[in-house]
Amino acid sequence: MDVAALSERVLSADPTAVARAISLVEDGHPEAFELLRRLHPHTGRAYVVGLTGPPGAGKSTLVDALVRRLRSRGDRVGVVAVDPSSPFSGGALLGDRIRLADHSTDPGVFVRSMATRGAAGGLAEATGDVVRILDAMGCHVVLLETVGAGQAEVDVVGAADTVVVVAVPGLGDTVQTLKAGILEIADVFAVNKADRPDAERTVAELRALLRLLPASGWEPPVVATVATTGEGVASLLEAVERHRAYQETSGRLEARRRQRVQSEILRVAEARLRAELLARSGTNLDELAARVASGELSPREAAERLLARAALAP
Amino acid sequence: MDVAALSERVLSADPTAVARAISLVEDGHPEAFELLRRLHPHTGRAYVVGLTGPPGAGKSTLVDALVRRLRSRGDRVGVVAVDPSSPFSGGALLGDRIRLADHSTDPGVFVRSMATRGAAGGLAEATGDVVRILDAMGCHVVLLETVGAGQAEVDVVGAADTVVVVAVPGLGDTVQTLKAGILEIADVFAVNKADRPDAERTVAELRALLRLLPASGWEPPVVATVATTGEGVASLLEAVERHRAYQETSGRLEARRRQRVQSEILRVAEARLRAELLARSGTNLDELAARVASGELSPREAAERLLARAALAP
Repeated sequence: MDVAALSERVLSADPTAVARAISLVEDGHPEAFELLRRLHPHTGRAYVVGLTGPPGAGKSTLVDALVRRLRSRGDRVGVVAVDPSSPFSGGALLGDRIRLADHSTDPGVFVRSMATRGAAGGLAEATGDVVRILDAMGCHVVLLETVGAGQAEVDVVGAADTVVVVAVPGLGDTVQTLKAGILEIADVFAVNKADRPDAERTVAELRALLRLLPASGWEPPVVATVATTGEGVASLLEAVERHRAYQETSGRLEARRRQRVQSEILRVAEARLRAELLARSGTNLDELAARVASGELSPREAAERLLARAALAP
Repeated sequence: MDVAALSERVLSADPTAVARAISLVEDGHPEAFELLRRLHPHTGRAYVVGLTGPPGAGKSTLVDALVRRLRSRGDRVGVVAVDPSSPFSGGALLGDRIRLADHSTDPGVFVRSMATRGAAGGLAEATGDVVRILDAMGCHVVLLETVGAGQAEVDVVGAADTVVVVAVPGLGDTVQTLKAGILEIADVFAVNKADRPDAERTVAELRALLRLLPASGWEPPVVATVATTGEGVASLLEAVERHRAYQETSGRLEARRRQRVQSEILRVAEARLRAELLARSGTNLDELAARVASGELSPREAAERLLARAALAP
């Protein structure tokens, strides 16, 4: 394969080349690294917006409405829909998310679905790489949508510059539904399906809740939306833009991206160490496991011997 | 702290000591390793049953019913309820699971709730250690219950000898609800709330689905239960016992536990490598991140330099 040519075609926003590049990354193809190395100097221009929240909150419809608005102002838009709760299957369950059918003939929109493959932790890495490809192809905005709202989703939206947490009225106790960790990563809240009767109460509840969080320079706005009609979507986009402006002027965007790059370097380095450890383990692992099973060694003691024998000892 | 004394008290099934030991493990206390090393030779006797499935399937009630049955035959029982979807909070959201109130005065039952703390991946490791403590204290059976059914839950029930996947009738498409990965880890299925009208259809659907999976020596039975009345719980326990017997006679239990020990040794070794990498990174990480941010290096190139400078290079 001619990686240089593929890279050029990605940079010229050829959708076939972009799809191929993403597949290389997802499959962990050896050429993927060279491709990403070539694309890297052309990245950093897209603004990445993550959307997370409980299943059934209407995230996909909201993404659809956002794409429509972004397109109407001329932005090139990338959409990555990620399902970390699907551990083995490669995307079939995401079938319902590969809608956005209205945009399928629009060269200004690129949509991709992803599910977990292989090792845990790999999904966040692959997502970051896919976002980078969409960035390099010239997307002004990349929307990163998760299916649920667990730890894996939190990891995935870690690749976003602004995180929108989508809640819905009437799902019982909002606090319970959103979980503590999700609240803490939110830059903007959307209370979707706001045509339901208890929407105002949910908005008020969320605002009250946010007042309990430690103060920072940014207080997450709570925006009521009805994704199906488009109501409130302009306000949501405006809230995201305000957060972007706040981060750009305060230097927080740069700091956030720097932090993200550090995490990513460490993640890649750890993956390399892990592979090296496995490669050097040989029959040691079998032997040590047998000694743990017999009660002779604890797992920790076995781990230390494994590292020593692999000459990777601390 | 006198770890030797604490270890002795755990081995004599002192509930206060067991609670203290689990807290040490959860908090990553430095003495935890020495404690686990001392307890390790006394482990391997408990049979670990994992229960996973979508929220609302009635797993907690089913666990309660199983505990009742196991107690009636004189088993000492440990219960670990794990909520991986709670990334930062330390257990408050699990409040509703710390029921089993009937058993609170029964010294033959030990119940503990856990939520994610700190790094991803850490929960599965901590769960394994907590199971080991309950094993050492003399539990005949440990029930390991997860709140949801995502990748994190799959990792958690990886510590089980038999995995029971709990489904419910009427949640729409059973396949969609259970996700492919959950199906594949099931040794036994419970269709709970089987007093609902479409229970039989769900049982039939599941059986049909299981016929599509590649054949192995064990075909997962599908048991209908009504946890609230106790109906079917004896059959469920019987199915678990059949799976246990199958694994013991076929040598699969030993192989499965050996495999689990290997994964655990690797996980501990990787955690040690990660800590070492961070400790040796110093200012290199800042500098390399800046060069990635400027487009000069790709994250992969930066990771390789980081490893080289930390003298951990492959």
